[in-house]
Amino acid sequence: MRKVAIVGCGLTKWGVRAATYKELAQEVSHSLFADIRDLDRGEVDSLIVGSALVDRLAFQAYPAPVVAEQMGLTPTRMCMRTEMACVSGQAAIRAAYTSIASGLSDIAIVVGIEKMNLPNLAETQASMACVLDREWDGVNGLNAPPYFALVAQRHMHEYGTTREQMGLVKVKNAEYGATNPTAHFPKAVSLEKVLASPMIAPPLRLLDCSGITDGAAAVVMTHGDLARRFTDTPVFIEGLGQATDGSLVVNLKSLTTWYPLRAAARDALKMAGVGVGDMDLAEVHDCFTISEIIEYEDLGLCPKGQGGKFIEDGQSRIGGTLPVNLRGGLLACGHPLGATGVAQAIEVVQQFKAQVPKERHVGGEWGLCHNLSGSANNHAVMVLHRGG
Amino acid sequence: MRKVAIVGCGLTKWGVRAATYKELAQEVSHSLFADIRDLDRGEVDSLIVGSALVDRLAFQAYPAPVVAEQMGLTPTRMCMRTEMACVSGQAAIRAAYTSIASGLSDIAIVVGIEKMNLPNLAETQASMACVLDREWDGVNGLNAPPYFALVAQRHMHEYGTTREQMGLVKVKNAEYGATNPTAHFPKAVSLEKVLASPMIAPPLRLLDCSGITDGAAAVVMTHGDLARRFTDTPVFIEGLGQATDGSLVVNLKSLTTWYPLRAAARDALKMAGVGVGDMDLAEVHDCFTISEIIEYEDLGLCPKGQGGKFIEDGQSRIGGTLPVNLRGGLLACGHPLGATGVAQAIEVVQQFKAQVPKERHVGGEWGLCHNLSGSANNHAVMVLHRGG
Repeated sequence: MRKVAIVGCGLTKWGVRAATYKELAQEVSHSLFADIRDLDRGEVDSLIVGSALVDRLAFQAYPAPVVAEQMGLTPTRMCMRTEMACVSGQAAIRAAYTSIASGLSDIAIVVGIEKMNLPNLAETQASMACVLDREWDGVNGLNAPPYFALVAQRHMHEYGTTREQMGLVKVKNAEYGATNPTAHFPKAVSLEKVLASPMIAPPLRLLDCSGITDGAAAVVMTHGDLARRFTDTPVFIEGLGQATDGSLVVNLKSLTTWYPLRAAARDALKMAGVGVGDMDLAEVHDCFTISEIIEYEDLGLCPKGQGGKFIEDGQSRIGGTLPVNLRGGLLACGHPLGATGVAQAIEVVQQFKAQVPKERHVGGEWGLCHNLSGSANNHAVMVLHRGG
Repeated sequence: MRKVAIVGCGLTKWGVRAATYKELAQEVSHSLFADIRDLDRGEVDSLIVGSALVDRLAFQAYPAPVVAEQMGLTPTRMCMRTEMACVSGQAAIRAAYTSIASGLSDIAIVVGIEKMNLPNLAETQASMACVLDREWDGVNGLNAPPYFALVAQRHMHEYGTTREQMGLVKVKNAEYGATNPTAHFPKAVSLEKVLASPMIAPPLRLLDCSGITDGAAAVVMTHGDLARRFTDTPVFIEGLGQATDGSLVVNLKSLTTWYPLRAAARDALKMAGVGVGDMDLAEVHDCFTISEIIEYEDLGLCPKGQGGKFIEDGQSRIGGTLPVNLRGGLLACGHPLGATGVAQAIEVVQQFKAQVPKERHVGGEWGLCHNLSGSANNHAVMVLHRGG
């Protein structure tokens, strides 16, 4: 099987952007081709676009050829959009991986892209409600904040997790995110400010939630034989895991133990032949502060129920057990759904290449990326390794 | 590289269905598991859902876990939706192929599914207009019928193709489709009736157009070592090609020569190590009658401009050069966007297994499937081979 590497990265500024969907594609294209050496657009044989709500929020179905045209690409092997809500970006990387590994593609570009801010945000909110089962859950108002509020309440009840512990996740991610100029909210915040921010869905307050953000991220991927033509430091995808269980919220096995995350992490680490203790950094899906706490637990960084203590003890900071979300996570960067999974991978690549500000630089050689989608009913984990 | 086979098939009745999106998923699941021997749902590690307009027409984003739940599946390796407008179904098969070939998946189910008929068809028509570039083409009314009307006018101008020749495509496909109980329009029609049907976009009349159809289709795919556990006649995917060129209609190189189809067919046949002359049957994307005429030409079945003569001479009928669209094509079956590509593959499998009515049975060992999407700016070709 061919090895597959990420050899170039591009990012737009994330935030409430005046740019259209197409303009975001142009912008990420400029950033990507400025990063990679010696790549002619005509050599790119495949394009995978991870985009979740483009049909509803940009009123553009079939975005893959639109993005191709804006980037000057004419894919001759594979052109496709992947959609898996908040996992759309990592799903795109996975689709490119399998296409390259199986020999159908040689050089692929993956673009994660989302335009979420409309003049009328009620349209965005209604569309977000169709991510959960529309007929049973979405129609009753169960979109992301109320769902993760249920999760938080239950975790507090079962394990004694506190409001302050959740707030500390935001404090950490905002602190690291303040070093990230592409972030939507690049500014440190105090715990007091988190705890005094407006209530959204009890116990979650505004600063416990990731933002409604426009943005794009892109990577170039190729096989091992070609990788060093484009960069001195290819980053290899060594492990991939994904697991899905259930859709309707009433059918989920647990609100507070994310079994598909455990399965996806186990598979990805096994495929890479390493353990979570070998990781030098992790980018995980902190759509809400409570999410990151549960992810510490189900990734096996601490015992079940001890995620709150893990952040309280600083174990997910630089110098702790495992630095988590150094780019600032979804909480500081915002969450343009399809772009997030791609941007997480970019942080790991840029850490390995020492392309991030020294305040958040840890480097190393192994990194883990984690995405979840919907009611945390689907999880994807990717293990990356720095090529020598 | 592992070989990949289709080992089971399921279809719903296609048409204007009272069933919801979820009910279509349930129905295709029953059909699929009745067809395959000895498959436990717990063994299915991957689910790929090809669906184009589900966000807008079923108001359901993130349909893959919804379909999984309705089918009783809990994918442990890969769960994803592919979207590529009218190619969404073959894109899903391709994604399953690469995942199995690269070793990430062992047993995958691919579901193509679309719910297109709403109480208000204006919503469907508006959503179809966002398949082409919305800002430049869709907003000016250029959805599928007017676009393919331009193509037909130009082909008539350049090559002298006649209204009658286009009508004969519908006559042939309706005749074969009359043997297909799952088809939306399973009834033969006369050339006179085609030529007298209501004008939609000159020169295309109602019976030159495929229908707005609800339906689903599904296949089970696995690798070569497992294939014979599930069927005595696995059908192997031996070739895959896809090419995309352009998005805005103004940027297309030609209305009447589909270069990406030529490239996709060349790649798929080369990968399979055969020529188009080795095919025993083909299922091609007759979204409009003119489409099938151009496909004869760009697949290399006849010289450029001679597609009209090819149908007139009966060369795409049983006994001719190559029998085309024996299930009735999109013209007789209707076109639930994501389902079409999967149903085309099912026709080839069922032909090889002699599971179709004798009136349309040709059998053989090599079959070709072709999908196009958008303004014919993207084409996908798959070559299938009957396992002994």
